[in-house]
Amino acid sequence: MSTNLKVGVIGFGSMGKNHVRVLRELEGVDLIGVVDTVARSEREDVLKSLQDLLQRKPNYCVVATPTAFHEEVAIELAQAGIHALIEKPIAPSVDSGLRIASAFEEKDLIGAVGHIERYNPALREAKRRMEEGQIGKVIQVATRRQGPFPGRVSDVGVVKDLATHDIDLTRWILGTEYESIDAFTAKKSGREDEDLLAALCIMQDGTVVNHLVNWLSPLKERTTNIIGERGAFSIDTLLADLTFHSNAENENQWADVAHFRGVREGDMVRYAFSKSEPLRTEHEKFKEAIQGLGTEIVTLRDGIKTLATAEEMIRSSMSKSSKMGK
Amino acid sequence: MSTNLKVGVIGFGSMGKNHVRVLRELEGVDLIGVVDTVARSEREDVLKSLQDLLQRKPNYCVVATPTAFHEEVAIELAQAGIHALIEKPIAPSVDSGLRIASAFEEKDLIGAVGHIERYNPALREAKRRMEEGQIGKVIQVATRRQGPFPGRVSDVGVVKDLATHDIDLTRWILGTEYESIDAFTAKKSGREDEDLLAALCIMQDGTVVNHLVNWLSPLKERTTNIIGERGAFSIDTLLADLTFHSNAENENQWADVAHFRGVREGDMVRYAFSKSEPLRTEHEKFKEAIQGLGTEIVTLRDGIKTLATAEEMIRSSMSKSSKMGK
Amino acid sequence: MSTNLKVGVIGFGSMGKNHVRVLRELEGVDLIGVVDTVARSEREDVLKSLQDLLQRKPNYCVVATPTAFHEEVAIELAQAGIHALIEKPIAPSVDSGLRIASAFEEKDLIGAVGHIERYNPALREAKRRMEEGQIGKVIQVATRRQGPFPGRVSDVGVVKDLATHDIDLTRWILGTEYESIDAFTAKKSGREDEDLLAALCIMQDGTVVNHLVNWLSPLKERTTNIIGERGAFSIDTLLADLTFHSNAENENQWADVAHFRGVREGDMVRYAFSKSEPLRTEHEKFKEAIQGLGTEIVTLRDGIKTLATAEEMIRSSMSKSSKMGK
Amino acid sequence: MSTNLKVGVIGFGSMGKNHVRVLRELEGVDLIGVVDTVARSEREDVLKSLQDLLQRKPNYCVVATPTAFHEEVAIELAQAGIHALIEKPIAPSVDSGLRIASAFEEKDLIGAVGHIERYNPALREAKRRMEEGQIGKVIQVATRRQGPFPGRVSDVGVVKDLATHDIDLTRWILGTEYESIDAFTAKKSGREDEDLLAALCIMQDGTVVNHLVNWLSPLKERTTNIIGERGAFSIDTLLADLTFHSNAENENQWADVAHFRGVREGDMVRYAFSKSEPLRTEHEKFKEAIQGLGTEIVTLRDGIKTLATAEEMIRSSMSKSSKMGK
Repeated sequence: MSTNLKVGVIGFGSMGKNHVRVLRELEGVDLIGVVDTVARSEREDVLKSLQDLLQRKPNYCVVATPTAFHEEVAIELAQAGIHALIEKPIAPSVDSGLRIASAFEEKDLIGAVGHIERYNPALREAKRRMEEGQIGKVIQVATRRQGPFPGRVSDVGVVKDLATHDIDLTRWILGTEYESIDAFTAKKSGREDEDLLAALCIMQDGTVVNHLVNWLSPLKERTTNIIGERGAFSIDTLLADLTFHSNAENENQWADVAHFRGVREGDMVRYAFSKSEPLRTEHEKFKEAIQGLGTEIVTLRDGIKTLATAEEMIRSSMSKSSKMGK
Repeated sequence: MSTNLKVGVIGFGSMGKNHVRVLRELEGVDLIGVVDTVARSEREDVLKSLQDLLQRKPNYCVVATPTAFHEEVAIELAQAGIHALIEKPIAPSVDSGLRIASAFEEKDLIGAVGHIERYNPALREAKRRMEEGQIGKVIQVATRRQGPFPGRVSDVGVVKDLATHDIDLTRWILGTEYESIDAFTAKKSGREDEDLLAALCIMQDGTVVNHLVNWLSPLKERTTNIIGERGAFSIDTLLADLTFHSNAENENQWADVAHFRGVREGDMVRYAFSKSEPLRTEHEKFKEAIQGLGTEIVTLRDGIKTLATAEEMIRSSMSKSSKMGK
Repeated sequence: MSTNLKVGVIGFGSMGKNHVRVLRELEGVDLIGVVDTVARSEREDVLKSLQDLLQRKPNYCVVATPTAFHEEVAIELAQAGIHALIEKPIAPSVDSGLRIASAFEEKDLIGAVGHIERYNPALREAKRRMEEGQIGKVIQVATRRQGPFPGRVSDVGVVKDLATHDIDLTRWILGTEYESIDAFTAKKSGREDEDLLAALCIMQDGTVVNHLVNWLSPLKERTTNIIGERGAFSIDTLLADLTFHSNAENENQWADVAHFRGVREGDMVRYAFSKSEPLRTEHEKFKEAIQGLGTEIVTLRDGIKTLATAEEMIRSSMSKSSKMGK
Repeated sequence: MSTNLKVGVIGFGSMGKNHVRVLRELEGVDLIGVVDTVARSEREDVLKSLQDLLQRKPNYCVVATPTAFHEEVAIELAQAGIHALIEKPIAPSVDSGLRIASAFEEKDLIGAVGHIERYNPALREAKRRMEEGQIGKVIQVATRRQGPFPGRVSDVGVVKDLATHDIDLTRWILGTEYESIDAFTAKKSGREDEDLLAALCIMQDGTVVNHLVNWLSPLKERTTNIIGERGAFSIDTLLADLTFHSNAENENQWADVAHFRGVREGDMVRYAFSKSEPLRTEHEKFKEAIQGLGTEIVTLRDGIKTLATAEEMIRSSMSKSSKMGK
């Protein structure tokens, strides 16, 4: 008899398919069913309803439906006593997220939110090195998450869909919360929700935070730049690259070179480290959590804080617009 | 008898030396004297006072002293009836700048401010193409001007010293003024003035503007990224590179590639165009202005607007800090 | 009744697994069996012998065994009247390759060699543009295929394993054959076969060709640089990037910039075009060939020419070493 | 009375002007005259003949005339008892170079050749680290020196003009001589001399060497890549960048990333070190040599060996062409 965990996936869009691919290759789990109410594909053996899946007695489920259905599905799982890994954002609104969290807490179930950047090997390595003090006290975190509108469907705006990545990774890597938020959002491409966010924030520890997030740039970027008192990290989460820029110590007397690189330069190191696929690590950490072996998940309460920060950014933008008479 | 313009330089620090080098190579001018009250160098034939220079009857002078002395020197030049190209920022304060502007206007003299980025060939080429409509309506301008503290002396903070470059180029390239400003400044390295600025602004035409400017990053950056409805420009003013990213049209079905470049990509073009040294162009345009042949200078009133915007950023930061109880 | 082609895969190493993945997603084919005599994986439904596969009556098979077994497997397929797509290199030796080709020709079967670079979208786009005359007559082709020793098994040296990619793509993109070959190979890491090739060649049309191929460099590179009379192409086959450097026309008078970019620069364009996975295109083209709808395969005779050129490089290296008394 | 060395420059083309600029800023020397028989510029205070310069009793002279005049000028300096720093290549032919060397040796004078890459800070730092054993035994050196035809005049072909840089730096950094040479040259642009070199060589210590040198590529490159048993160095001599690629140790299990970076990666470090302008260092080292304080010059005999290697490359190309019946 298999001791593998039985796992189900609800939703079979872009992220649902990724979960299915990763679960098929993961040791220690059996993928027992995929619910796809839309039935996009004839070739896949998909279930038509959540009830069909529940009858197979999953140990945990992935909620990868459109955000609008997270609450309904998650609460049904909680009532059935099943742990759940819910795609980000946790819900369309903080209120909805709170109802989800209560449902899981009442039943003493593990719920987690799929803020996948926390499992990106480059950000994990950066955090590990920051905790060791490599760059000293952090001064500024600037993220850019720009690119064309993706093929996949999103039923929320760019703040809740994309910027929650940046908010969550910033909260996590700094270990502190947003204190002040100035943000601007815009709808430029005719979609119902906003497709651009620019935010200037201060964290409770005084770190300056800047986010540029949109679905409008032709150039795809996923970068996090962290300036500390003793050096800086540049992280490209697509290639999982972590580059360290040490503070400048060497003089450049050669004028041509100094023009480009500055009068002083420090070593630049792009570190090598084992790079595992983030979604795989996310499942490994979730498994550990439900087996009582680890706590490296994004809790539902954590996911709600990230969502609340996103909502704060939208509010900041609205109040700015109204002050400006727009 | 030479019909060359007689030019003097006042101040022989980092920028003063650059002006001297460029003026020595420029056709149509004779460098008639350099005033260096500090007398840093024994090897250079420098004058000890502005009076010595004025006796040589310059047609125009460059004011490259520390900012604190701009007003005193500029007004003495105006009273002597001499046109002046004043290094940026025009003055330590808007009030001081206004007194300078009045002095030149009363005497009907040409005064200009050395906002050199306007003469950077990559920004000029970008502006030319934007006026032709290449990227359509502009959505967002984001500049980064980060790097280690330079060797040269500055008697103002990073907002007036460096960010005035970004403010001026943004005003100029968009042809509109700043409407709303949220900014944060910090003093991290123990200098008297601020060494970091992060600003989130909206222009009068609705363009979102973001500036990251500091003397704290080990990595030197001088970039301007402009997203328009029909494509984006990336400008590196160090290499004078202008790169155009056209909106994505081609599908990437190859998953490995799509992960990095996105599901759609457009052509990327780095344009070639004649690249002249900006400081040389600045002098050429100033010469044209005093000869009545052109108007491509940064007027004193223009320089004051840029400085006023910088002061607004500092005020925004202070009000934010006081609200946050710091 | 399905009109899909029935396809079998023989060999389940690194490339075998890639074929299986692609065939599972390809329209118009049914993957009917995978032969894995080594039986690496318990989880996959693999056949233990070629006979088991032949009983399922495949329309075509992929030969992805170690090179040493290509001849045995391919001839058995030919005798059974089955078309075959054989991984590169076609065989361990030209003689072996010739026996394979004869077997398929006698039975009037389609045989092809999996020189996958011909299906790389960037090289295809480059070839299309070269045929239109964009870079004029080609002067030089230089390829670099360097990197650490890969995880996968190879039973031939780097010349036959990797350099056959470069030889084949050069023959194909130029439409001409190698005329003179100077090559050097070395064994540096203790493996039985050579792990480094450096080759300097002239093609029959006079083009200079340079190849640097090894399993010794810590930095992974897959680049092809083509200089023509009217411009140059740089191709990175990993990202499927094609970049065009137009001939320099614009003067750089700015000394700092000219130092790096040269006194003249031309436009640089990275083209966007639809990027499909090469292995998928390879199967599509093979399907077309056996359906009589196209001829864009690498024929067995073509694969033999590439292998013969590789053998010539090894001979050149040996004669050089013997002349040098080594 | 000044104890500065009196220095003259003969030739006022591209390199002559660079020497003048550097000598004007160098401590411990007085530039006493520049000979420019062509008299390109009215604005410079130039002498019309070498005799005029000799009357001013220089301690050493720079020979920066066209290569065709090196012998005549150098021998006149030797006869006058004046040390000389001769631009590269030392002479148009080895025979001519030998006559120059004899003249200086007979008079016990210091003669040196301006192979400036030896003073490039990145190559010097690489050599220092190689001597410490950082990359272990060297396996392969590959240089690329490609770009459009420069504005400056050259009276020799690209082998003697540009490739002598690569030959000299390879001899110097490896500390060994060329043993076998296969080379190909071509004239593609209608100039009298060759404008392309591709060379495949083996050094006496077995290192594989590859040079790609031409005036035909639209893209300017000045790179040296050195693969050793324990890592690799990439050097860009334009930016004076030295990058170390350590051997791969870390596994990449993330398939998307492994596709680009390989299954294993090592750290990559771009080192910072003090960067002085090479021409300035060249003069400092020459001064040290004539003052008996150092020996870091490129001796005339060294320059002849480099030139002899260049001539060997041209001969190799000719013999190849004749064998090929061209």
